[in-house]
Amino acid sequence: MRPVAIVGAGKTPFGVLADQDVLSLSLTACRQALADASVNPPDLEAFYLGNFASPGFTGQNHLAPFVSSSLGAPGIPATRFEAACASSGSAFFHAWSAVAAGIYDLVLVCGVEKMTSQSTPRVTEILAGAGDLTGEVRAGATFPALFAMIARRHMHVYGTTREHLAHVAVKNHAHGALNPEAHLRKRITLEQALAGRPVCDPLTIYDCSLVSDGAAAVVLAPLEHAARYSPRPLRVRGIAQTSDYLGLDRKEDITTFPAVAAAGRKAFEMAGVTAHDIDMAELHDCFTIAEVIALEDLGFCERGGGGPFSASGATALGGAIPVNTSGGLKSKGHPVGATGVAQLCELATQLRGQGAERQVMNASLALAENLGGSGATCVVTILESA
Amino acid sequence: MRPVAIVGAGKTPFGVLADQDVLSLSLTACRQALADASVNPPDLEAFYLGNFASPGFTGQNHLAPFVSSSLGAPGIPATRFEAACASSGSAFFHAWSAVAAGIYDLVLVCGVEKMTSQSTPRVTEILAGAGDLTGEVRAGATFPALFAMIARRHMHVYGTTREHLAHVAVKNHAHGALNPEAHLRKRITLEQALAGRPVCDPLTIYDCSLVSDGAAAVVLAPLEHAARYSPRPLRVRGIAQTSDYLGLDRKEDITTFPAVAAAGRKAFEMAGVTAHDIDMAELHDCFTIAEVIALEDLGFCERGGGGPFSASGATALGGAIPVNTSGGLKSKGHPVGATGVAQLCELATQLRGQGAERQVMNASLALAENLGGSGATCVVTILESA
Repeated sequence: MRPVAIVGAGKTPFGVLADQDVLSLSLTACRQALADASVNPPDLEAFYLGNFASPGFTGQNHLAPFVSSSLGAPGIPATRFEAACASSGSAFFHAWSAVAAGIYDLVLVCGVEKMTSQSTPRVTEILAGAGDLTGEVRAGATFPALFAMIARRHMHVYGTTREHLAHVAVKNHAHGALNPEAHLRKRITLEQALAGRPVCDPLTIYDCSLVSDGAAAVVLAPLEHAARYSPRPLRVRGIAQTSDYLGLDRKEDITTFPAVAAAGRKAFEMAGVTAHDIDMAELHDCFTIAEVIALEDLGFCERGGGGPFSASGATALGGAIPVNTSGGLKSKGHPVGATGVAQLCELATQLRGQGAERQVMNASLALAENLGGSGATCVVTILESA
Repeated sequence: MRPVAIVGAGKTPFGVLADQDVLSLSLTACRQALADASVNPPDLEAFYLGNFASPGFTGQNHLAPFVSSSLGAPGIPATRFEAACASSGSAFFHAWSAVAAGIYDLVLVCGVEKMTSQSTPRVTEILAGAGDLTGEVRAGATFPALFAMIARRHMHVYGTTREHLAHVAVKNHAHGALNPEAHLRKRITLEQALAGRPVCDPLTIYDCSLVSDGAAAVVLAPLEHAARYSPRPLRVRGIAQTSDYLGLDRKEDITTFPAVAAAGRKAFEMAGVTAHDIDMAELHDCFTIAEVIALEDLGFCERGGGGPFSASGATALGGAIPVNTSGGLKSKGHPVGATGVAQLCELATQLRGQGAERQVMNASLALAENLGGSGATCVVTILESA
């Protein structure tokens, strides 16, 4: 396996983008990434598209050749990858695999989701398709309910509090306010977070990520070719995709995600580093409790300590390990299929020193964790300034 | 790239399987394939699932880890691939790539679709998601209409007749009558085919494939390990995945599918053989005209000659190149996401000499062509008795 680098990155702003459809969003992100790498579409050898539920949200399926042909790259293998909220993380994992193995020398990975549409009233139902419909979902548990159970259990076992979770929301909103492309650029106070409208106790509206439109894309090449495309390539130091049961009822302990812990172990081992070496991270905060648990599962803090660690300021800009400098899914937005690649775009921004007001000083090693469902898929990626 | 072999194959019967859901179908096929290869689930290193529209048909998304965890293989990378009717062909292509490149030594590929359900009345609408919703589909063209246009143009340019198409239907029904696992085991006469209820002129009900439930699975390993798993492994001699525009309006000539011709060229080149060396083929007869065009695009007959070639009996059992000995999508059935891997299962049956009444004598080299949409994705695979 040879070293691989991201040599171009691009994304759309995230938000309610009424004048954009799933194709135009994808094309915008892809063209930006290609321009960033000075690559023309006919030079691409394969196309990897991460998308969770375009057929449900927009009716449009078979999206990969639709995008790549419209982009000007007909002919190449063009495939859609679906792994719930980790769809584009998984697309990236497979693209990395193919380039690392020497199958291709130049590929494009895109993630996209158009969630605000005539189907928006069905969003909770469509998202619930990432859970076990024959079990937990049939019993009425949608994702806010599943993560509320996880949060309640974490509180019971470890003493995590509503205030701990609120600190995650306040921090991610503060970061997102510094990101011109975030969906909801709005600082909130701890009091506001605690007084948020209840969604599913103990989670309020401020514990939940957003329903957004958006797309993100990256170009991958072998590291040895990277200088042809970019003065600031980003080396993939470690990466892993893992899986687990869909239903929470199949898990022994719902205060931890074994798929996250395993993906982290594998990615760290491949990179030859530990959590202490990471300068910043994008963690999958679909709900505030998911960021708390990811901090623990990846070893940024001890088991059960994610709440106090978050409240300490360690994960804020200027802290020991800034997390979700983009604003995260909470403030930047969460167009499901775009999220995995969008996390990598934020890592690229930081590692290239282009973070402006939200820049992490001297960031050279960064990690992204992309979660599917309530822990049934996880992709962890570690990038380094090459 | 090292040689790769199919070392196990399994599938469910195809049909209206009222007591099976998308999970149980997948598990049945996967367990058969694993048993055929004497492999236990924990030995698997990755799982590749082809599925077109489970979220639309059944509500269940995020299907790959659902299946692999339930099978007893939690933890491994488990990913769903979607490429319309070529979804499991594409999953197989990516699995082959990963084993050929040395990333994994043992992987499982499954294709599944549960089409008969409470969503069956929406089947034409769900399938139309594989076309361009912003163009042809918005104008009212569903897939029977698109292939009717293709057939009409082929008739106009090449003199193809209704009788030519009817011969394809009669032949595939005759083959399917010999396949105990086919959905519609019913011989028809040329007169019956010609008198079929119109669907979209010039296509009748006998020109159209079936709406079926089913799943199919294969186990892949490097050829050098194949003897550990199977006394009759099947070597992947050639394979390619290609793409093209979704909309027919973007194509210069709708009597040919450039993605099919290109996938054929690449697969033949990799295999170092030509169409004349192939002993039998499974071609994607979503509509009879699609089999006619595939015969031409792959070089089994000359351009425009697919109709007379079919009427000559050359593609029937006992003919020069038996096509769709399984009964094809027309008679065996077409559970969309299962079709690509199910074609490979028929190749395995024939190459292992297990075809019983439908056996092609001395078959040693066989080809499968799996089409997505009206030619926007194609996967061609050439297998050989190892």
